[in-house]
Amino acid sequence: MPELRKDPITGNWVIIAPERAGRPTDFAKGAAEFVRGSDPCPFCRGNEAMTPPAVLSVPGDGKPWEVRVFPNKFPALTAVGSAVDAEHPVLLVGVHEVIVETPEHGATLATLSLKSIENVLRVYQARMRELGKDPRMRHVVIFRNHGPEAGATLEHGHSQLIALPIVPMRVQEEVEGARAYFSSESRCIYCDIAQQEEPNGKRLVLKNEHFIAVAPYASRFPFEVWLLPRRHSARFEDTSETECGSLAGALKSTLASLDEALDSPPYNFIIHSAPFREPSDEFYHWHIEIMPILARVAGFEWGTGIHINPTAPEEAAQTLREHIDPSPL
Amino acid sequence: MPELRKDPITGNWVIIAPERAGRPTDFAKGAAEFVRGSDPCPFCRGNEAMTPPAVLSVPGDGKPWEVRVFPNKFPALTAVGSAVDAEHPVLLVGVHEVIVETPEHGATLATLSLKSIENVLRVYQARMRELGKDPRMRHVVIFRNHGPEAGATLEHGHSQLIALPIVPMRVQEEVEGARAYFSSESRCIYCDIAQQEEPNGKRLVLKNEHFIAVAPYASRFPFEVWLLPRRHSARFEDTSETECGSLAGALKSTLASLDEALDSPPYNFIIHSAPFREPSDEFYHWHIEIMPILARVAGFEWGTGIHINPTAPEEAAQTLREHIDPSPL
Repeated sequence: MPELRKDPITGNWVIIAPERAGRPTDFAKGAAEFVRGSDPCPFCRGNEAMTPPAVLSVPGDGKPWEVRVFPNKFPALTAVGSAVDAEHPVLLVGVHEVIVETPEHGATLATLSLKSIENVLRVYQARMRELGKDPRMRHVVIFRNHGPEAGATLEHGHSQLIALPIVPMRVQEEVEGARAYFSSESRCIYCDIAQQEEPNGKRLVLKNEHFIAVAPYASRFPFEVWLLPRRHSARFEDTSETECGSLAGALKSTLASLDEALDSPPYNFIIHSAPFREPSDEFYHWHIEIMPILARVAGFEWGTGIHINPTAPEEAAQTLREHIDPSPL
Repeated sequence: MPELRKDPITGNWVIIAPERAGRPTDFAKGAAEFVRGSDPCPFCRGNEAMTPPAVLSVPGDGKPWEVRVFPNKFPALTAVGSAVDAEHPVLLVGVHEVIVETPEHGATLATLSLKSIENVLRVYQARMRELGKDPRMRHVVIFRNHGPEAGATLEHGHSQLIALPIVPMRVQEEVEGARAYFSSESRCIYCDIAQQEEPNGKRLVLKNEHFIAVAPYASRFPFEVWLLPRRHSARFEDTSETECGSLAGALKSTLASLDEALDSPPYNFIIHSAPFREPSDEFYHWHIEIMPILARVAGFEWGTGIHINPTAPEEAAQTLREHIDPSPL
């Protein structure tokens, strides 16, 4: 059973999940590859029996489903609560779900229709709202690993969701940073960033009615992009229907420009949203961070937390602007 | 010129170093490979003219050098101080050096003689002491990237050193954690860990006169190993000659057991030592963290800082104990 452990020095958590590996020395060597290439894909329509039963499924056009959510077969955390670790007691409770974004095996969030992308975003919201009702859950992380180098084990387009009984330290760091800025400036730091980057323009990737995409000033990764909602809101799950439509366009255009500029790179994206039941609505601002996997993270980064980024965000933004297809915006 | 930038929200630093890449969209695709395979190796004896001049060189047995230190040709930071960033002024000063560990092209810290490893450790110390004299420097990180998947671009065995004008946030986190424990317990937390793990044994990898190696309780990575000195000391540079000999044995045995158990995996190691000119001698405890690169870091880890580790440290330690060659100890 997966186990949450806390580092006694830094207070950082780790999840020990032996069920996710084979023998302890079983690790993939060499080039990154998907776990299954030609095998029947468990995420394709018709193969639903290969996955756990759906917890949410969005039907469409007379088809059984367009988006499908089910528990991860190899979860990092499980909902079996109340078990504790003998050495450092911690409630081992959590939820790990897979969100299959489309029945089309080869489609991605850069190629799907705007309507389909909007469906996926609405499903993210629905799951966050539902899981937020469980008083044991403090935070939900929605993320997408695209490509084997980004940690995806299956090719068929999917996102993942993990609900946690704790607020992760990196999330806390952001929330505290935003709180401190609000205390001294009485303004949201993300609102200020959006309002400065748009007229400045040199780190702006794109904009539409409700969102802007920027290469952040202190980008950790080459071609890192943040999608910021123009309206101040701490919680992704509170995004309106109209805003979801606008976000679908901004996300599709951003991902398509990365594909164009960088020959379809692997990437991770993460939705950063406020922890549940914490008063952060005034100063925190939900957003999406997209990180293409282009440079290797090495000893220096692990030892210090300081990333060495060979591409200035100003240069990344300029390159992406040259590859933007404005039609989905 | 490389630039240090601070994230306005979290306070984390990044280094923007465009000189380290070619064109902004120039990134290696596919399998990890060394930059040069069959080209003349700039780190081999006789090719010294291919690197910047040495700042330190240890002669041996009538040979011109056994260990050689020089500035990195593509530095993440340079000693050209006083330049500032117009948007967020920061002193752009630092040192980035390469430590070639041996003239033997294919040798590693798992295969070199104990005497040679000790020489490398003494060179690390000499550089730390020297760079610590510069009042602008707050911290030195010594790290090793082994294998292309771990971020090494050249095959010939080498370590790196970066001196920084700031204390990195991850280092500060450790120092603060150790300080808090000392405040409440009046003991060093690393001393306590070493004293508990040795008799407990289930996470112990090896021990010798002056060091123990453990798989830490909250291991972030499969087969992560920490080398802890038995004597309380905040600073690696204060390690005695005898202790360096003992460390050479512990390091060689640990790395050799990883090679045996996991078919010579890529790895990073980092020497964690106290920041300069900060009163942390009572409660901080220098150590080495070794992280084999076996599992991919993905969206969840980047978004939360929580690592999902598929190998329990108890299992990793047991596997490594079965592969320890005790002769260098």
